[in-house]
Amino acid sequence: MSTPSRFKKDKEIIAEYESQVKEIRAQLVEQQKCLEQQTEMRVQLLQDLQDFFRKKSEIEMEYSRNLEKLAERFMAKTRSTKDHQQYKKDQNLLSPVNCWYLLLNQVRRESKDHATLSDIYLNNVIMRFMQISEDSTRMFKKSKEISFQLHEDLMKVLNELYTVMKTYHMYHAESISAESKLKEAEKQEEKQIGRSGDPVFHIRLEERHQRRSSVKKIEKMKEKRQAKYSENKLKSIKARNEYLLTLEATNASVFKYYIHDLSDLIDCCDLGYHASLNRALRTYLSAEYNLETSRHEGLDIIENAVDSLEPRSDKQRFMEMYPTAFCPPMKFEFQSHMGDEVCQVTAQQPVQAELMLRYQQLQSRLATLKIENEEVKKTTEATLQTIQDMVTIEDYDVSECFQHSRSTESVKSTVSETYLSKPSIAKRRANQQETEQFYFMKFREYLEGSNLITKLQAKHDLLQRTLGEGHRAEYMTTRPPNLPPKPQKHRKPRPRSQYSAKLFNGDLESFIKDSGQVIPLIVESCIRFINLYGLQHQGIFRVSGSQVEVNDIKNSFERGENPLADDQSNHDINSVAGVLKLYFRGLENPVFPKERFNDLISCIRFSAAVAFYRLGGTEES
Amino acid sequence: MSTPSRFKKDKEIIAEYESQVKEIRAQLVEQQKCLEQQTEMRVQLLQDLQDFFRKKSEIEMEYSRNLEKLAERFMAKTRSTKDHQQYKKDQNLLSPVNCWYLLLNQVRRESKDHATLSDIYLNNVIMRFMQISEDSTRMFKKSKEISFQLHEDLMKVLNELYTVMKTYHMYHAESISAESKLKEAEKQEEKQIGRSGDPVFHIRLEERHQRRSSVKKIEKMKEKRQAKYSENKLKSIKARNEYLLTLEATNASVFKYYIHDLSDLIDCCDLGYHASLNRALRTYLSAEYNLETSRHEGLDIIENAVDSLEPRSDKQRFMEMYPTAFCPPMKFEFQSHMGDEVCQVTAQQPVQAELMLRYQQLQSRLATLKIENEEVKKTTEATLQTIQDMVTIEDYDVSECFQHSRSTESVKSTVSETYLSKPSIAKRRANQQETEQFYFMKFREYLEGSNLITKLQAKHDLLQRTLGEGHRAEYMTTRPPNLPPKPQKHRKPRPRSQYSAKLFNGDLESFIKDSGQVIPLIVESCIRFINLYGLQHQGIFRVSGSQVEVNDIKNSFERGENPLADDQSNHDINSVAGVLKLYFRGLENPVFPKERFNDLISCIRFSAAVAFYRLGGTEES
Repeated sequence: MSTPSRFKKDKEIIAEYESQVKEIRAQLVEQQKCLEQQTEMRVQLLQDLQDFFRKKSEIEMEYSRNLEKLAERFMAKTRSTKDHQQYKKDQNLLSPVNCWYLLLNQVRRESKDHATLSDIYLNNVIMRFMQISEDSTRMFKKSKEISFQLHEDLMKVLNELYTVMKTYHMYHAESISAESKLKEAEKQEEKQIGRSGDPVFHIRLEERHQRRSSVKKIEKMKEKRQAKYSENKLKSIKARNEYLLTLEATNASVFKYYIHDLSDLIDCCDLGYHASLNRALRTYLSAEYNLETSRHEGLDIIENAVDSLEPRSDKQRFMEMYPTAFCPPMKFEFQSHMGDEVCQVTAQQPVQAELMLRYQQLQSRLATLKIENEEVKKTTEATLQTIQDMVTIEDYDVSECFQHSRSTESVKSTVSETYLSKPSIAKRRANQQETEQFYFMKFREYLEGSNLITKLQAKHDLLQRTLGEGHRAEYMTTRPPNLPPKPQKHRKPRPRSQYSAKLFNGDLESFIKDSGQVIPLIVESCIRFINLYGLQHQGIFRVSGSQVEVNDIKNSFERGENPLADDQSNHDINSVAGVLKLYFRGLENPVFPKERFNDLISCIRFSAAVAFYRLGGTEES
Repeated sequence: MSTPSRFKKDKEIIAEYESQVKEIRAQLVEQQKCLEQQTEMRVQLLQDLQDFFRKKSEIEMEYSRNLEKLAERFMAKTRSTKDHQQYKKDQNLLSPVNCWYLLLNQVRRESKDHATLSDIYLNNVIMRFMQISEDSTRMFKKSKEISFQLHEDLMKVLNELYTVMKTYHMYHAESISAESKLKEAEKQEEKQIGRSGDPVFHIRLEERHQRRSSVKKIEKMKEKRQAKYSENKLKSIKARNEYLLTLEATNASVFKYYIHDLSDLIDCCDLGYHASLNRALRTYLSAEYNLETSRHEGLDIIENAVDSLEPRSDKQRFMEMYPTAFCPPMKFEFQSHMGDEVCQVTAQQPVQAELMLRYQQLQSRLATLKIENEEVKKTTEATLQTIQDMVTIEDYDVSECFQHSRSTESVKSTVSETYLSKPSIAKRRANQQETEQFYFMKFREYLEGSNLITKLQAKHDLLQRTLGEGHRAEYMTTRPPNLPPKPQKHRKPRPRSQYSAKLFNGDLESFIKDSGQVIPLIVESCIRFINLYGLQHQGIFRVSGSQVEVNDIKNSFERGENPLADDQSNHDINSVAGVLKLYFRGLENPVFPKERFNDLISCIRFSAAVAFYRLGGTEES
């Protein structure tokens, strides 16, 4: 029996199997190549990173050196100047000079930070990349060893499958051939039996005997063949079972390799790679973020200094720098001639009428002048406000330049166009100067007017006093009693009260009348401040504050300012309390009248409000 | 009558006056000098600032160019590589390569930003300082004009005082002399009257006549002198009054000049100076802060990329890159020999007993092997964990380097000492490699064991199936019915579910049994996410999300991960809802059984919960 054409021949099966194994083999080689290539790419990437950071380190170092040189150049220049000496001495700089020094400090800080950055790149980040590169190569080698082992094992499994398949084929072929031989024997037997089924009477005895022995022979052969077939059949079944089991095991092994082991091998190659890269890049990020924080701190310091760019305190410092130039001179005093004992305007007859006339003329002249000058003043002030609006225009935000720079366009062109465009700047400046011109003209006019008014007003006031006191003039032949003591030469210009009535060491009632403040600002302001920040403060009104600060606050109040106006508690609470105590203590007439003092004290001696005693007390004054 | 010595002589008074005026004059000159000096200092400061920013602009530009060159050099290198082509193509890079590209991008961004900074310094900040310098000079000139005017006025006032004082002196002197003459006449008259009081009888008539005419003469003279005196006295009084009035006016004028005008003059010089300086420095600050913001944005992008340095997805990408190498091969199939129709293990007698024995042997062998290999696995895993702890150590914070750099000490030395000190690094690395060595040894041992187990397990399972199905074996002469279809050649390895039961498009019950999850993670996680972020979201479950994101989340769940675990809402809520819909829709047996579907629908048709319909619906499946 020939095999039907639909069955694969042994050779075909073997060829198919071999091609399948060859394909797997090729894949294994390719896998190894891929892993090798991956490692090469990693090593290349790490090399690039090292080169990159080495070059960047150089750039940062150069940048740092340039900044250092820049700072040093200007530091050296300022170190010799007078300002700097003063800076060293009392740190009390003019606010623009302070900004300038902070700018230089910032450059130094940036220089140092970029040097640190450069150092971290070189001695930390690059080293890390180098190590990762080493590690990657080592990991690849180790996983290569393992994968060779795995490939070998896989090949063994495939060879085993081949062997058991061949064995199955062999035994199955033998089983088939035994079966066909058995079938042949059965056919022969059938034929014999068929023949012996022929009518018996036709057969000769001899023939009959011959036939019987032939049947016997055939039967024997059949039995033999049957045994052979059974044996081969069993062998074939066993071989097929083995083939099937090995097939199952092979497929499981191949599956395991492709699905699990291959993934594990890649993991072996990757071992630590991502984590180490993460750490290396985080070191870079940490350095960059720290640089940024440091830079930001420096910029904030400069911003604070810029916030306190302030003409008022600079003017104060400027005038204090040159006390001889700005100290008001001695008052011109009346120089009586040859023992002339009259040192006041005489307003008796016959000059009285004349003086009266003059006084009236002065009065009406002054009224006119004042109205006129008030107009000029208003114009001046409005013009000044216009100028101030011009110079405080908030035109310094350059964010959009950086938004431009984030796109891929070229920087240069966009920046110069978008802001500070020259025509608009020129126009603005021309406008500003024109306004200035007008301001100075008006200011001059105002000064002239006010100078005249000052002179006339002084005369007017003196005449008014004199004429009012006319009836007492007879007795006033000596120096007026409240003439101030002779001024000392070159006394420093002290902050002058803006009120004509004295605030400190004055009379409360006349201050109220003069200032129009029902409660003096100082009282209201100090109490508000203490109310806000001082109620939980231990030792309030007991602990004394800083004398310097107390004086500062006092002077500020005397200038008519409110130093405690802003809601920030940047004053020591004890100093504020000290100012309030100083104010009450200094009053010419204490809030609690002297004659009632002892009564009041005995009233409160039993209460705990000892603070009152200190506040309104006159004991120390 | 001579003037008593205690009265100042005219000359003394004049000299005193003149010295006082001279002093004032000197002060005025000095004031002018001070203002000039202040302006010079300002101009110098502004010049320094211009020089400083010009130089810094150069430094920034050089820095920018160096960074640009650096970025360009590596960009050019990568542009030609395969990775980059892929980058251009699908932006789906390996995570370390992504970090590398972002690093280069950051350098380019820094380069651009520093160029912008340089440009702003040059074309904005410096120009501002230049203008302030011009303005300061102009303001000084204008205030100088005004102060000359004021000085002139002041001098006029002082001259006037001098004149009226002299006039007073003159008239007073005249008044005194007239008085003394009057007194003399009165004395003479007295003498005459005294003589005429002598006894009359002694006097001759002639003499009497003579005396009478003399008395008359004296009287006449006295009258004349009286008139003269009165006239001079009035003149003197008027002159003194004028002197006193002028004195008052002068003092008021001087006071006004020193207290008000001088301050106003300084204000004129200052006009706009601080405000303009403020704006110029704020432009600088704005530029610097913007640079910082841009830099920070870039660093944050890198940090994100570093955060997603992830071996798992890289492995996926790596395997997808080489599909031919990593695609599992076709399964080896049973090759029946010569039309052998049996393709299953035969387990009838006589091989049954033998197979049974073999099965039992396999079972006990496997049990032993599994226990042994489980031990090896545990050791391997523990070692791997140790390595992972080593490579994820958080040793990348370099803050202290920058704290060092903030002090005045030298940077270099401190940095390299404080961290990454070489002995400790070397020790750590040696330790790590030793652990690696051990890990690889154990891992190899584990692989060998597991390979053997896989093979034996496959045989064991097949035998188990066969022996269990022994009684049915007769009917199973054809191919087993659930044999998978012939695998396609070269199919891509898809994300493989880590559960043996299917998650998507599977059966809910078998998944629960297999995974041990009472509620599938995907349901719990999606509902939690929607609960957190989606309840206020309009169109939830109606609007469809991004197909790409839906697939990402789906694949992640299939890998057994929980992509929605972190508490950040970085997923589109619609995509998450989409995943949940996809999951329910795909279930083999819908949550609401098909046979009850219409009943349920009619139940809820009246309620508003249409969302339910969409969630559990099978209409679309």
